[in-house]
Amino acid sequence: MDINEYLSTKKKIIDTALDYYLPKAHEYPRVIHEAMRYGVFSGGKRIRAILLLAAGEAVGGKEKELLQPASAIELIHAYSLIHDDLPAIDDDDFRRGKPSCHKKFNEAMAILAGDALLTYAFYLLSKIKYPPELTIKVFEEISYAVGTFGMIGGQVVDIESEDKELDVPTLEYIHTHKTGALICAAVKAGCILGGGTLQQTHSLNQYGAHIGLAFQIVDDLLDMEEGKKGKKRKSDLVKKKLTYPAVYGIESSKKQVQMLIEEALSAIKDFNHKAEPLRQIANFIGERGY
Amino acid sequence: MDINEYLSTKKKIIDTALDYYLPKAHEYPRVIHEAMRYGVFSGGKRIRAILLLAAGEAVGGKEKELLQPASAIELIHAYSLIHDDLPAIDDDDFRRGKPSCHKKFNEAMAILAGDALLTYAFYLLSKIKYPPELTIKVFEEISYAVGTFGMIGGQVVDIESEDKELDVPTLEYIHTHKTGALICAAVKAGCILGGGTLQQTHSLNQYGAHIGLAFQIVDDLLDMEEGKKGKKRKSDLVKKKLTYPAVYGIESSKKQVQMLIEEALSAIKDFNHKAEPLRQIANFIGERGY
Repeated sequence: MDINEYLSTKKKIIDTALDYYLPKAHEYPRVIHEAMRYGVFSGGKRIRAILLLAAGEAVGGKEKELLQPASAIELIHAYSLIHDDLPAIDDDDFRRGKPSCHKKFNEAMAILAGDALLTYAFYLLSKIKYPPELTIKVFEEISYAVGTFGMIGGQVVDIESEDKELDVPTLEYIHTHKTGALICAAVKAGCILGGGTLQQTHSLNQYGAHIGLAFQIVDDLLDMEEGKKGKKRKSDLVKKKLTYPAVYGIESSKKQVQMLIEEALSAIKDFNHKAEPLRQIANFIGERGY
Repeated sequence: MDINEYLSTKKKIIDTALDYYLPKAHEYPRVIHEAMRYGVFSGGKRIRAILLLAAGEAVGGKEKELLQPASAIELIHAYSLIHDDLPAIDDDDFRRGKPSCHKKFNEAMAILAGDALLTYAFYLLSKIKYPPELTIKVFEEISYAVGTFGMIGGQVVDIESEDKELDVPTLEYIHTHKTGALICAAVKAGCILGGGTLQQTHSLNQYGAHIGLAFQIVDDLLDMEEGKKGKKRKSDLVKKKLTYPAVYGIESSKKQVQMLIEEALSAIKDFNHKAEPLRQIANFIGERGY
């Protein structure tokens, strides 16, 4: 399989699903639906949604049924970016080269659009067509993963650690929570809904944890490259952020990425050929920074 | 029954439950849990949680089991107040005489504490001990009620209508959505989990819609009284808000409250003695402004 083709095909399918599931822009009250859609459709690789699909399909689930929970995961990601960019948090005027939500609309609407995307993600999850016990399990996994013991926790510690001395456990906490928790939740949700066993869910959790951390280290490496080219974002320029390359150096960080990818692959070594996309995605993440 | 005693007893029970269910203040990352607790325990009558209990008990449900979903409703209410008070939205430095969350902590932490309370409410709901089909139904009701077709929708239209000409349909939309939707969801959730029939859920929805609107009109009347005593909040002073008394006049607004309470009572006239607290709460809301 060609991983680039796979990712671009899946991205299109997910974008179509997101457009289908989100309230239309003309629905009343119009401005909030426009702001939600602006936040969701301002780019992005849809990697979290793709991971949910790939994990679900790896254990025998059907793409068509997995698209709704995959969309919910992507809405949660979009909400987190909108709130991260707010003046009170990262204060970033641009995201992926476009004005961030609060610049395009205003701060009030960006706060509410984030709130609305999080809320709508849970609404979408309540309407998925799966056995109720599985749906509830997924609710629990996701709401835990994006709360204060997961994504929000990572964000809080990230904010608190700005301009402080480097500290390895804190750096690991931030990376595994701020980015890792939602990635883990996505693969676990896919596995649960796809009909995976407890053992498979456990293996995919390991897979998710490793690629999640690798993904973030690669992001740090890419940011460093961009920084050299003078392309840093405002929040990266103003704030001294804790990063892997800053703590471990570039070479050691790259080695760590490779190790994490190997561990991710090892976690799913007993899966059959249906897990091929998961393997390719792991490799893709590992090679993204080079 | 003595309604004041009933409300104060139930409030204490709910406060104890909230303290039990919320992450402890010392749990890592500490500051976010402190901010969440500050937002939740800065006063409030717990009327939404009490309504969930009363509706659930009216159809045969047990208080002990209803406390967890009732707490979730109250966390959602607390999140909405924290975000409403933010500088970008209502810009209120005080709530119930205490510094609002962003003044006590900071804006970033208030945004994240609101996000975290909403997220944690859904986590709590995922852990309630009810048949999975009922739990999912409640998820759907609540996530719809607090989204852009409910509470957030009301908030958006409220912001958009500031300093504009009075317009009755807009005023009704704001009141039924910003305050009414969550109150309705609370009584419906209680009814569903308490084992109510479809017919009973429908009746309680009517009850909720009427007391929800009455509650908001009374709030407008009380605000007007406070305004005369020079006790207005910053957001009320700076912004020209659309209110019932401003549109209909004080006497007509009071009459409307009485009519709404009568309709609420009529909606549950076929309920037995277990619905007595619901009846008394309706009367209490009607008389609160006098």
